[in-house]
Amino acid sequence: MADIFEVPEPGNDLLEKAHRIHLASKEISQAENQMRIKALNLMADYLEKNAKEILEANHEDYLRAERKNISKALLSRLKLSKEKLYAGIEGVRKVGELSDPVNQIQIKKELSNGLILERKTVPIGVLGVIFESRPDAVMQISSLAIRSGNGVMLKGGSEASFTNTAIVLALHEGLQQAGLDKNVICLLTSRKDSMAMLNLEKYLNLIIPRGSNELVKFIQQNTKIPVLGHADGICHLFIDNEVNIDMALSVALDSKVQYPAACNAIETLLIHKDIAPGFLKRAIPLFNSNDVKLIGDKKSVELGVEFEASLEDWETEYLDLVLSIKIVEDLDEAIDHIQKFSSKHTDGIITENISNANRFMNEVGSAGVFHNCSTRFADGFRYGFGAEVGISTQMLPPRGPVGLEGLVTYKYFLKGQGNIVDDFSSGRAFFTHKDL
Amino acid sequence: MADIFEVPEPGNDLLEKAHRIHLASKEISQAENQMRIKALNLMADYLEKNAKEILEANHEDYLRAERKNISKALLSRLKLSKEKLYAGIEGVRKVGELSDPVNQIQIKKELSNGLILERKTVPIGVLGVIFESRPDAVMQISSLAIRSGNGVMLKGGSEASFTNTAIVLALHEGLQQAGLDKNVICLLTSRKDSMAMLNLEKYLNLIIPRGSNELVKFIQQNTKIPVLGHADGICHLFIDNEVNIDMALSVALDSKVQYPAACNAIETLLIHKDIAPGFLKRAIPLFNSNDVKLIGDKKSVELGVEFEASLEDWETEYLDLVLSIKIVEDLDEAIDHIQKFSSKHTDGIITENISNANRFMNEVGSAGVFHNCSTRFADGFRYGFGAEVGISTQMLPPRGPVGLEGLVTYKYFLKGQGNIVDDFSSGRAFFTHKDL
Repeated sequence: MADIFEVPEPGNDLLEKAHRIHLASKEISQAENQMRIKALNLMADYLEKNAKEILEANHEDYLRAERKNISKALLSRLKLSKEKLYAGIEGVRKVGELSDPVNQIQIKKELSNGLILERKTVPIGVLGVIFESRPDAVMQISSLAIRSGNGVMLKGGSEASFTNTAIVLALHEGLQQAGLDKNVICLLTSRKDSMAMLNLEKYLNLIIPRGSNELVKFIQQNTKIPVLGHADGICHLFIDNEVNIDMALSVALDSKVQYPAACNAIETLLIHKDIAPGFLKRAIPLFNSNDVKLIGDKKSVELGVEFEASLEDWETEYLDLVLSIKIVEDLDEAIDHIQKFSSKHTDGIITENISNANRFMNEVGSAGVFHNCSTRFADGFRYGFGAEVGISTQMLPPRGPVGLEGLVTYKYFLKGQGNIVDDFSSGRAFFTHKDL
Repeated sequence: MADIFEVPEPGNDLLEKAHRIHLASKEISQAENQMRIKALNLMADYLEKNAKEILEANHEDYLRAERKNISKALLSRLKLSKEKLYAGIEGVRKVGELSDPVNQIQIKKELSNGLILERKTVPIGVLGVIFESRPDAVMQISSLAIRSGNGVMLKGGSEASFTNTAIVLALHEGLQQAGLDKNVICLLTSRKDSMAMLNLEKYLNLIIPRGSNELVKFIQQNTKIPVLGHADGICHLFIDNEVNIDMALSVALDSKVQYPAACNAIETLLIHKDIAPGFLKRAIPLFNSNDVKLIGDKKSVELGVEFEASLEDWETEYLDLVLSIKIVEDLDEAIDHIQKFSSKHTDGIITENISNANRFMNEVGSAGVFHNCSTRFADGFRYGFGAEVGISTQMLPPRGPVGLEGLVTYKYFLKGQGNIVDDFSSGRAFFTHKDL
């Protein structure tokens, strides 16, 4: 992927597209809730109408990719079965059912007699989304953008180019049928444009990268546009000394193996020294029987863990059936290790000791701090947000799993009757600051 | 100021300070509300106790500055009178009376039986604040940081160095008396350190610059740390054709002259062509009698405005008694001009036509959109936030005037009873997503 890691200046063609999406985004930002829902339903209808063409395009992409000897994992992500397509279409309709993120009143108060302040959510403007392979992402991202009144510039993997083009054609037909400017969804197909996008800070308001750690890090470091996303997901689970061992084993196993390629799967298990012998005696065969390779510090190797860890292991996101294990003196050492190596995504503790649980959750600075449950719950759908736009590991909001609220911002609306500040300085008027 | 515009690598001394403030910020982040209030009251007490030394230090700074032929405006900002000092001390106590921004529950819901999700506000960590002259800012910023459970690294103007040092000494005595680590407030005194701070992304979580546009722009472009602030404040007021002329004149005058050096004062007045002759006939003498220099487009010069504007005028923040005037065809041209030149701070409309007011407020993308009131209301205190940390002109939250909520972030706390995700995939458990 190194060859796309350059950020060229946007060419005229890209600037023209950026200008058109900017205009179209003004229109969608003013569209009523019912209009946005109508557009989503029509987008879904046209995806259905064009299903045959979309599946054929995907077949073409698949054949080409096969010829290029692309990895099996990539091929399987690229493959759009009829079931996957229809699930995606259903997803577009479901996004229409989510409650409107726009025009939500966050603050309403009287500042003074006849002077009313409102803070309401509004669309951000234009999103730039860079993602790899999965063609179903085009449907999902586009529908979230329309639901929240934003324009979206999409750049998918080149291996899915035919599929993505066919999907966007259907989405455009749906938008036009709804009477909206189709340019609000814009698909970039050239590699050069996808990186030049990072220089479009005058047109794009948020970049959402979905891809490898390497890609996300590169984007974070090479754009002035705010980035919603995370590079690493190095999550920890700490097994304290006062635990129900059955629960600890079950949660540790789920946190690792339920879907090891997910960012919310754990990479490191920290174990209190007092419980380590008894815990590992049962954990080692359990993980072994689930094909998990265990890598441990000296003490855990002495207790039966097969491979010895190097410093690098504590900062590696395996995204695979590999787990590093460290035996710690106490809660303090566990917290220190996490503060040092965690990517501030999600970290958990298993303990029956409530005061230890509270200390852990208060002192660990990650976006998610979990007690007696699997780290795999760190997810927008599981949190009940109805959708997940991304997971952010930055310190400032939005952080953690981000739903549709990550695609809106807010504005202050102040309505008066000729009110002036001089009347307040001179004592002729005064502030009431009454919540309405 | 060009000579400080370099960003050196932090030296060992600065790294040592950063490490100490990092540790101290962990302590204050866990301090209970009552402890933080106690600390603020003791900080105020010690400022009172040390008032004589602080005023003497300020006298020393003042004498040195006078010898250096510093501008009158700067000298007046540097001067800390007894009244100003005591108002500052009173301000520290008042910050203690603001409601606690930390530990506020934003979301609380049951995800499934026995699995409870909470989203609570937490301190950000360590703030870096760079400001000029005004020594009272040290008291204000430090108290806001302590109120919100954050550490703060301060860099004030070198001309106020004795005063700032004396104030921080008193604040440290107050913190120690409260039993807290005094290192949570750290004053940098060397020029080199103030810029090297921008490279402390491992230790600082937010930079708040308070100073010239030039300084703010430089900081925004030269740090990976998020910046809360704004460079320009180019605000507009549009006088529509259906207006009460008395109201329009009063609001326009207030928006310009009530405090022209403020970022929320207007720089440009846009006037609907139909009302321009009648409005300007009264506005020109009114602004003249208030010493406002008027600069206009061709049409407004024909109607009596003295100086003709160049393109540069539409993008200049005068921060002075200067106002540019443009006559527009209609609401559309006014909105277009604002979208092009506004710094997205605050823009207002004067009109009796509600549908025009709504269109203006919906389509103008600024953080504040005002109808029939002065742009000077765009301010954290006037909005009733109790404090203002800064005003942000970025698109994403926080934007507009930012109160204490800008100094906290949030964390997700998930408490379970051994819940695992596999039970949900296999249908043994299901999500309830019930608000609590």
